[in-house]
Amino acid sequence: MLEIKKILLVGSGNVATHLGINLKKNNYIIEQVFSRNLDNAKDLAQKVDSDYTNKPKNIVKSDLTIIAINDDSIKDVIHYLPNIPTVHTSGNTNINILKNNFTNYGVIYPLQSFKKKMGLNLNDVPFLIEANSKDFENNLIELCSCFSEHTFHINSLKREKIHMAAVFACNFSNHMQVIAQEIMDDEKINYQLLIPLLKKTFSKFEEDPKIKQTGPAIRKDINVIENHLNLIQKDEHREIYKLISDSIIKTYDNTD
Amino acid sequence: MLEIKKILLVGSGNVATHLGINLKKNNYIIEQVFSRNLDNAKDLAQKVDSDYTNKPKNIVKSDLTIIAINDDSIKDVIHYLPNIPTVHTSGNTNINILKNNFTNYGVIYPLQSFKKKMGLNLNDVPFLIEANSKDFENNLIELCSCFSEHTFHINSLKREKIHMAAVFACNFSNHMQVIAQEIMDDEKINYQLLIPLLKKTFSKFEEDPKIKQTGPAIRKDINVIENHLNLIQKDEHREIYKLISDSIIKTYDNTD
Repeated sequence: MLEIKKILLVGSGNVATHLGINLKKNNYIIEQVFSRNLDNAKDLAQKVDSDYTNKPKNIVKSDLTIIAINDDSIKDVIHYLPNIPTVHTSGNTNINILKNNFTNYGVIYPLQSFKKKMGLNLNDVPFLIEANSKDFENNLIELCSCFSEHTFHINSLKREKIHMAAVFACNFSNHMQVIAQEIMDDEKINYQLLIPLLKKTFSKFEEDPKIKQTGPAIRKDINVIENHLNLIQKDEHREIYKLISDSIIKTYDNTD
Repeated sequence: MLEIKKILLVGSGNVATHLGINLKKNNYIIEQVFSRNLDNAKDLAQKVDSDYTNKPKNIVKSDLTIIAINDDSIKDVIHYLPNIPTVHTSGNTNINILKNNFTNYGVIYPLQSFKKKMGLNLNDVPFLIEANSKDFENNLIELCSCFSEHTFHINSLKREKIHMAAVFACNFSNHMQVIAQEIMDDEKINYQLLIPLLKKTFSKFEEDPKIKQTGPAIRKDINVIENHLNLIQKDEHREIYKLISDSIIKTYDNTD
């Protein structure tokens, strides 16, 4: 196994910040932060007590490079980077993007949406790990285990599908609440009225969501569905209402 | 104001059960449970220490009738009921369904989805109240205030729209998790892997969902969206993915 002690951190956003701080806390040395945005690089460098640069020619060779930048920029940045063991942190980018530039390469993907002001504890965050060799994979598992209790070996295709499932489970269900809020706002009713119901609905994620389903669609209550379709003011919302209600009806038709 | 002490409970399902038990606990007398299903009527009658029947001719005259049955059956049952003050508990049924049969009529709608085995405390449940006179409305507010801290006067149209908003916020977002689970199951990955992310996403309902949105659509990350559309195996899920992503993109286009 490789000896990993010093790290080159590429990026200065939320993921880079969370990883950098947690690595430093666990006695890894962040040698340098490399970021296009020099102010952000400086900010993060101060937090992790490291050098920083926005100039490719000044990049240092470390034990491991962690690329924590947006998906689209990964293909551009790799041309600047030295051939040292290198990982990216993207849910949706194949490991092979790193294939031609590095001898040891891999992915450490934290299954969490990072916001600037969230707590820094990564203990509960699952890390999905992949590498081009068993040895390097073990390195990455050791690295991630220092701040997370949940590390999993997951290949690129599975990781992309998990990321897609997370988009449904989190982003799309949040948008359902955005639409609900819009409907309430149109009626000048406080959205907060729905909070007790939301809290009840989303109190037990451990339970099978299929068993928890309620509402007019699962009851095949066509009168209520028709009435709602008439009440909806935005065509876009009506289309969503129709499509999801149909999908709910189908889901329980197949299993009954 | 009317004197309400004795209650005729029509229905023996979850709502009838929750209301009956809470009313009895607050010193109202459940005089009779009337339900098509005699076994259920008997079960509930034992819990609230009342008479029960499934025969229209045996229905007693009480101070108040509470109709807590499914929406479609309300129009049928009202023909059997005596002209005493009467309310239904439906989110989606206009108050006027009661107009021709009763002198005093109204609605008490608990904004909660009731499951058989949930706790019986209705303290946090908002009750949306409507009546055909101010006096009777005050009666109903007094009644509901005995078990809920949150009573609101809301007319039928607004109530129907709130119910519709709740379908989006709760039923539809739950279905997004059903789809996520299906995607994970297809990959033979444990759905529980998403739980930390779900908990983070749905920890603070008090926050504006519009501000909490994350994911590829709000970032207009067309590459990720395209990749997900390619990865999705079910046409139905692909259509939902497309429609909701478009809706997210539009939502933030208008406000930026």
